[in-house]
Amino acid sequence: MQMRDLEYRCDEALLRGHLVWDDAVSARRPGVAVFHEGLGLGDFAIERARMVAELGYVVLAADMFGERKQARNLQEVASLVGALRAEPEKLRARGRSALTALSGLPQVDAGRLAAIGFCFGGSVALELAREGADLKAAVSFHGVLATKLPAVPGRVKASVLVCTGADDPLAPPDQLTAFEDEMRAANVRDWQVISYGNTLHGFTNPAADGSMMRTALYHEQSDRRSWAAMKGLFDEVLA
Amino acid sequence: MQMRDLEYRCDEALLRGHLVWDDAVSARRPGVAVFHEGLGLGDFAIERARMVAELGYVVLAADMFGERKQARNLQEVASLVGALRAEPEKLRARGRSALTALSGLPQVDAGRLAAIGFCFGGSVALELAREGADLKAAVSFHGVLATKLPAVPGRVKASVLVCTGADDPLAPPDQLTAFEDEMRAANVRDWQVISYGNTLHGFTNPAADGSMMRTALYHEQSDRRSWAAMKGLFDEVLA
Repeated sequence: MQMRDLEYRCDEALLRGHLVWDDAVSARRPGVAVFHEGLGLGDFAIERARMVAELGYVVLAADMFGERKQARNLQEVASLVGALRAEPEKLRARGRSALTALSGLPQVDAGRLAAIGFCFGGSVALELAREGADLKAAVSFHGVLATKLPAVPGRVKASVLVCTGADDPLAPPDQLTAFEDEMRAANVRDWQVISYGNTLHGFTNPAADGSMMRTALYHEQSDRRSWAAMKGLFDEVLA
Repeated sequence: MQMRDLEYRCDEALLRGHLVWDDAVSARRPGVAVFHEGLGLGDFAIERARMVAELGYVVLAADMFGERKQARNLQEVASLVGALRAEPEKLRARGRSALTALSGLPQVDAGRLAAIGFCFGGSVALELAREGADLKAAVSFHGVLATKLPAVPGRVKASVLVCTGADDPLAPPDQLTAFEDEMRAANVRDWQVISYGNTLHGFTNPAADGSMMRTALYHEQSDRRSWAAMKGLFDEVLA
């Protein structure tokens, strides 16, 4: 397994992602962009990128904040995430630039791309699906499901998979209902939502122990199940 | 693979189920009860029982209507299903009698039972979970999720999995929300709900072509996905 930093740009921003791939394979493979949580691109997203690469894909752990900025506390999370959420077009452009960087790599089959993300990154994957990015799949793990720019009919190409904690205060039941209504209204060809009982925010991250955020807590079973659901979808659409 | 009818009783009713198991295996195995849709125990539930048996379980396709009555039209469905729905205790007793018959078989490990069901049968599996049947798992495929006897705290033993079509008029969004609230309120230890987009009622049944019921339609992808979710749960809890 090979790993290296990969720098790419979006307008004025220098983004420092991390690329993971198996160089024992020579054929072009599907590419998967992994979008980090609100803390920024750190160990967790890089570890997940490695896990996705082990499934046989070329994986870019994207940098959404620029120069791999990382938040040290919730206030910094709010500031970094808030700046992008306030400008959804900018957020989408940032996400898109990761897909462009990924699809330009010699080992990637640009016709078979997917995006996944965690918390904030889940929203990024969904925003890319909404704007019609050329994705086979978009998977959100405990992402916020609300958007300022709802999907419109005929636009979404990705198969959409939402994995959400039934007790996640950042994706409460009414948000879930609204999301499903959005998918229906936009005639999204393929979407599914999995709601995991007894599961809070951040359930895929073993470091989520409730200390930084009381309502973000690792849930091993829901982590395992949602990962299996993602793999199942990849098997379907990236093969 | 062996198959034979298995008769059992519940009060005055003679129930004629169908048993499927692999007799090449000698050790006691988990037992799975399969509950039929509103049409009664026929080809579809028996085929599913065979598919479950191929996963390595001893499977009883239960008979909920007695003497393997089958409905020939929607009116008969309404009459047969309605009679049991009106008496949820009777419905539960009928379901329980299938579990008792199954768990008494020499090839079954009575400590590892599961129940699955389709449409009406999905509700039966959920009713058994609600009343605290000794199940490791209860899986509903396009079942009605409403109940007259909601789950109460401390009662449910089964890991609950609901696979539902997002456009199923028999399990509309408000019913889904109410079900999730029920699971939360009863502190059900393990539950998950998967909502499949663009999917109507009856999505697992290749014979559902909209002719008998406009809103019951086979959906190959959702069938495959929900079956994989069931297998995943069985791997977790019946192993």
